Amino acid sequence: MSTPEQAAPSSASLLVRAATGHPGPYPPVWFMRQAGRSLPEYRALRANQAMLDACRDPGLITEITLQPVRRHHVDAAIFFSDIVVPLVAIGLGIDIVPGTGPVIDRRFESEADLDRLRELTPDDVPYITEAVKALVGELGGTPLIGFAGAPFTLASYLVEGGPSKDHARTKALMHGRPVLWGSLLNRLAVITRAFLQVQIDAGVAAIQLFDSWAGALSRADYERFVLPHSRSVLEPLAATGVPRIHFGVGTGELLASMRAAGADVVGVDWRVPLDEAARRLGPGAVVQGNLDPAILFAPWGVVEAEVRRVVEQGRAASGHIFNLGHGVPPETDPDVLTRIVELVHSLS
Amino acid sequence: MSTPEQAAPSSASLLVRAATGHPGPYPPVWFMRQAGRSLPEYRALRANQAMLDACRDPGLITEITLQPVRRHHVDAAIFFSDIVVPLVAIGLGIDIVPGTGPVIDRRFESEADLDRLRELTPDDVPYITEAVKALVGELGGTPLIGFAGAPFTLASYLVEGGPSKDHARTKALMHGRPVLWGSLLNRLAVITRAFLQVQIDAGVAAIQLFDSWAGALSRADYERFVLPHSRSVLEPLAATGVPRIHFGVGTGELLASMRAAGADVVGVDWRVPLDEAARRLGPGAVVQGNLDPAILFAPWGVVEAEVRRVVEQGRAASGHIFNLGHGVPPETDPDVLTRIVELVHSLS
Repeated sequence: MSTPEQAAPSSASLLVRAATGHPGPYPPVWFMRQAGRSLPEYRALRANQAMLDACRDPGLITEITLQPVRRHHVDAAIFFSDIVVPLVAIGLGIDIVPGTGPVIDRRFESEADLDRLRELTPDDVPYITEAVKALVGELGGTPLIGFAGAPFTLASYLVEGGPSKDHARTKALMHGRPVLWGSLLNRLAVITRAFLQVQIDAGVAAIQLFDSWAGALSRADYERFVLPHSRSVLEPLAATGVPRIHFGVGTGELLASMRAAGADVVGVDWRVPLDEAARRLGPGAVVQGNLDPAILFAPWGVVEAEVRRVVEQGRAASGHIFNLGHGVPPETDPDVLTRIVELVHSLS
Repeated sequence: MSTPEQAAPSSASLLVRAATGHPGPYPPVWFMRQAGRSLPEYRALRANQAMLDACRDPGLITEITLQPVRRHHVDAAIFFSDIVVPLVAIGLGIDIVPGTGPVIDRRFESEADLDRLRELTPDDVPYITEAVKALVGELGGTPLIGFAGAPFTLASYLVEGGPSKDHARTKALMHGRPVLWGSLLNRLAVITRAFLQVQIDAGVAAIQLFDSWAGALSRADYERFVLPHSRSVLEPLAATGVPRIHFGVGTGELLASMRAAGADVVGVDWRVPLDEAARRLGPGAVVQGNLDPAILFAPWGVVEAEVRRVVEQGRAASGHIFNLGHGVPPETDPDVLTRIVELVHSLS
């Protein structure tokens, strides 16, 4: 199990201090998918731009990543990207279809498909290095969080050919062909680690590894088929000193295992209160999340009460980063997010 | 909390005995959605028949309900229906759109919409009474399980207008207009209780209340906004002596609360092993479920090992009904289900 042992310098951001178990006067706040469709200025920029083109354009990445920082005064920026970007960068045929998600031209089916998953080098993603460097300059004291999808979630897209409700092909491969599964996840872990290292080398202050679909697994399956590969992404990054956040929705049964994979901070959805999450994670745990995104559509009095509850329950952990329990829904009124930031900042 | 206190007569079915804490030589087996699209004989019958028409045709209901019993030799039949059937029966405009699910013509939005949710009487659903009676005759010693959707899940369809990923409108109404929410769920509980009473009066041996979407809720929200209404469906049915099964997918955090709503048997998805589910439910608990439906697509050796694991872990509970952790996927090879029944029956 990884515990946050880094000594955070007093000049470090609130986010890095919270992530390393040195809480400040209030929890730092950011929102998953804050850089995205809830903002009219984002929709205007993306109007004539395909998602994967936007994710490879340093100017657009920079602008989209900055938008929510300017508007909401959040305590961290999340690097605008998509989890399939490193796979596209090594040459896989993937399209992001609006309303559907990533669609893969050739599903992963056999050993022969392994060869297509070559290692990723910094030269494959110059736009990432350029955008991170530009952002670090623009953001000043606001930390930038790097972004990558975890091996299991990437594997599910490759094996299913796109988003899946039940991950049936993926689980059949995992259980039925465990050696091939291990090879697939090894390759994806190498790619993911390299993709995060590029972001760290360019200056991100923290990273978040999104295992979006891990909540579809039992703990036994997660520990056998997924955890070793997420660990091989996260553990080597410990030496960089950059805090590692790890999140998947619906992972109440997996929280301790996801921490054991090498996370300094574990993201929690709205189903498990933060005090219970801290209990499951054990001593020294730092948590992030828990505000139900659906609450954003309730009257402000309800939102305010829920924000206060989350902050209060977060005190049970050794550190707390305020966030939603999942991404910002596209229909969200951005002003509600701005008010939440103000409220959390007032709760010292 | 409800504990199974009924003394099951020795002539009772394996299912009723297991449900009341009197296990037999092996766990009774049935599969959620066993009556449905995985069977070619079902697809042939439904080829020119809309779902809601099939659900109101006593001959079709009877035949479709019997098909998996004949084919798989399961230990229980599940009444073929859809959770919106009682709402259609009281006159709401609902269509079941293939590939989408139930679509509501007028969303539930305000007090004025409450009047449309009138009480349901047996005369509204003569086809249900007729089909249950026919089935009880045809099934002989095999018990028939009655079927209904729980108030929260029905409310979500009415408020969202159809299936929803995040239940944002529903949660906003629940939190933002709690009095209207209470009135809505009261009405739906009255309708649901009456719909189950019709089935009990016609002779079902057990009932299952499906709260398909309850897993989208935190326990705090479930206990405040949902549990009292599920209880007002289930508690009054205790007097009938018919065992009450209660299930929703992704409800690992809610298991004890769902039992407290008045369930004799609590359904468990694949994320929580049955021994852990029994621990969460407390003394005297009877469990159902847990086999991951995605496992049905793995090689038989994997399926067999998982079936044995589920049966073994089910021994930790006071009773165990073997089932999947969710419905049978449409693409399932029906022979795998037949083999699972044979295997469970051999594990005495």
